[in-house]
Amino acid sequence: MTDDWSSALLTDRYELTMLQAALHSGAAHRRSVFEMFARSLPDGRRYGVVAGTGRFLEALRRFRFDTEVLDYLADHSIVDDDTLRWLADYRFSGDIWGYAEGDCYFPGSPILVVDGTFAESVILETIALSIYNHDCAIASAASRMVTAAGERPLIEMGSRRTHEMSAVAAARTSYICGFTSTSNLQAGRLYQVPTAGTSAHAFTLLHDNERHAFDSQLRALGSGTALLVDTYDVDRAVRCALELAGPELGGVRLDSGDLAMTAARVRKLLDENEAFDTRIVVTGDLDEYAIQALAVAPVDGYGVGTALVTGSGEPTASLVYKLVARARGTDPGTPLEPVAKWSVGKPSKGGRKWSVRRLDDSGTATAELVYDAEPEPEPLARPLMRRLVANGEVVGEEPVEDARERHARSLRELPETAQRMSRGEPAIPTYFEQSVYT
Amino acid sequence: MTDDWSSALLTDRYELTMLQAALHSGAAHRRSVFEMFARSLPDGRRYGVVAGTGRFLEALRRFRFDTEVLDYLADHSIVDDDTLRWLADYRFSGDIWGYAEGDCYFPGSPILVVDGTFAESVILETIALSIYNHDCAIASAASRMVTAAGERPLIEMGSRRTHEMSAVAAARTSYICGFTSTSNLQAGRLYQVPTAGTSAHAFTLLHDNERHAFDSQLRALGSGTALLVDTYDVDRAVRCALELAGPELGGVRLDSGDLAMTAARVRKLLDENEAFDTRIVVTGDLDEYAIQALAVAPVDGYGVGTALVTGSGEPTASLVYKLVARARGTDPGTPLEPVAKWSVGKPSKGGRKWSVRRLDDSGTATAELVYDAEPEPEPLARPLMRRLVANGEVVGEEPVEDARERHARSLRELPETAQRMSRGEPAIPTYFEQSVYT
Repeated sequence: MTDDWSSALLTDRYELTMLQAALHSGAAHRRSVFEMFARSLPDGRRYGVVAGTGRFLEALRRFRFDTEVLDYLADHSIVDDDTLRWLADYRFSGDIWGYAEGDCYFPGSPILVVDGTFAESVILETIALSIYNHDCAIASAASRMVTAAGERPLIEMGSRRTHEMSAVAAARTSYICGFTSTSNLQAGRLYQVPTAGTSAHAFTLLHDNERHAFDSQLRALGSGTALLVDTYDVDRAVRCALELAGPELGGVRLDSGDLAMTAARVRKLLDENEAFDTRIVVTGDLDEYAIQALAVAPVDGYGVGTALVTGSGEPTASLVYKLVARARGTDPGTPLEPVAKWSVGKPSKGGRKWSVRRLDDSGTATAELVYDAEPEPEPLARPLMRRLVANGEVVGEEPVEDARERHARSLRELPETAQRMSRGEPAIPTYFEQSVYT
Repeated sequence: MTDDWSSALLTDRYELTMLQAALHSGAAHRRSVFEMFARSLPDGRRYGVVAGTGRFLEALRRFRFDTEVLDYLADHSIVDDDTLRWLADYRFSGDIWGYAEGDCYFPGSPILVVDGTFAESVILETIALSIYNHDCAIASAASRMVTAAGERPLIEMGSRRTHEMSAVAAARTSYICGFTSTSNLQAGRLYQVPTAGTSAHAFTLLHDNERHAFDSQLRALGSGTALLVDTYDVDRAVRCALELAGPELGGVRLDSGDLAMTAARVRKLLDENEAFDTRIVVTGDLDEYAIQALAVAPVDGYGVGTALVTGSGEPTASLVYKLVARARGTDPGTPLEPVAKWSVGKPSKGGRKWSVRRLDDSGTATAELVYDAEPEPEPLARPLMRRLVANGEVVGEEPVEDARERHARSLRELPETAQRMSRGEPAIPTYFEQSVYT
């Protein structure tokens, strides 16, 4: 990948036609506040996880209408010449606030707040939603898998089950949520996620027999490698592996069958041969429930694929990006007024919002408080929103490692109910509060 | 996007470690045949749809280990120097056969067959699976939605609910399956998919009131535009739209509420005002079942988002890429031998395969026949596999429009049961046949 691609057309056409109409009426230049939030969590989940922030900020920097892009829009008469001229100069010049990546969120949490003119803010809708809806969905599943795995490491290996670029984002996101490594090399290169992997059934089948395959792998990759032992007969494969590598064998991988029973049998075989440090890694259609069920099995690590990259039944986070306030004119200083669609059953709260997480004396979260104005700082309320973009300048980028540490802290801060696998209510309630300072 | 990106790291690490081990043992140079197929269709679906072929061929052309990629692999000690040197020269030099894009498939259909050395073929596994698993999942859902919609047009508008690059692929795929257009501008640019879209609730909320918003949109986009009429009160909005645009109004969009009841009321209002040609487009959490349920409502088009881009409950197609045959040596002419993992409940058939769709006298498909050798041509058996890559040269690229026409033909060829929305068995059975010519 080269570094000069434009993200500008990862956009729904209606944003540009709205822009054209608003430029025509002049309303395009009204100060506007858009808010991204979830009306509810994925079905039965106790918390959501903010992910995609870093990717969104990168996409924002790349949101430029270069000549190729403008030519496409002109050739297909998507917008008129005035709009093309405006797009050619496009640079977001406003402010963006949001939850830091890795933090937990709840229904109504204002996880992204975009404050600029209508024109410059509305056209970010699709790219923002695409990134956050995908990454938050993966994160919500990944975080629960990490909880289910306890102290045992998790390898993300779902690349083959999702779009090739989603795969890279899923690897990044699962690492933020506590996965140990990924099979995906591009995630290693772009985001410094540790990578893992040794061999597949094809490698065994390629050789004259299993012994030939194991011998090849051990010679090339050393005895610390992990051998895949379920191509034919598992017990025979483990014995063969031990004959060739001895107790120095790094690991064995099981990818099929009854993983709990097989792992117990393999552990016994390994121990009988004094291969006490040889690790057993299990893979094959694992999700958070299967991982939890394997807690008592002698397993040293899990590889997770399909369930991770498809959000374990919830492949999108259902976040929305709504205009919540706008000035009724373009003069500087015109006050913002709350706006909202009339809805039955889908309450949208108008107005710019600020939020904090209320903590008890022990530092455990008790509620998500969403204010209609910036609340006064206080010790038992952790502010949730940080400035990501200041006057058009991206100021919120950070290493993936920081988001990873933040997620672990944020999850520890929640009450223990958050870590239950069973379906239930959000771990803490969300309250919409009137600030005493307004 | 620029044109010189590499797809080489959209790959699982274990492919490169297997490569290293196989180069070490020499088995890397054995002729090998890999096959991509589905063990079953998505739950209850009657047929699958091949999609991603064009994208895979593009990714294959871009599968090059340039200096940046090699530096990453070297710096992180992913593979050894011999392997790096081999990768630097990598060009796939074999043959690839596969089902043409848009054709239907069934359990066991060999939708992609890669015939080359083990080394050059194994490292294509992840990129091939990522592309086909994503695109086939979307296609399977999209095709059913097109059937449900009958003659009415479908707009793909799910970009915001999926990864930003999956969105582009989903737009392309749904167009192949018969959608009329997409909201996604990048799909318009890259794949010449027609684009559509006018305005969102934010546009109405931005203005002083709904009349102000409608007036702005009509002035900028003309009376042929579609107005979104459900921000406040639908009936009032439709009356206002008609006052401003008259019967020339192009369309109205409904995005919430009981779409069937509201559409009937709006149609009546429009007709009373002689706006007989004003179209009613409905959007908002539609899937194939909701579309079918709206068949009797006075609706002129559907916009589909979430359900399309998430495969309507089946976000991945569960295709696998398996080594099915290899030579037991590297001398030219060494015969291929079938290979397969031992499995219970997951039958894998070893050996290179060829397939045809058996037709009856009327041209209706009756069975998928998968042979262990190339069958003799005959009039009532449509050959399904075409050469996509010949001696390393991509020969199977085609315009998206061709795949779109092929899908319509392929679906018409299936028995009528294929078009049922209810869950059931595959529309035709798959038979594995021994060729009389072997």
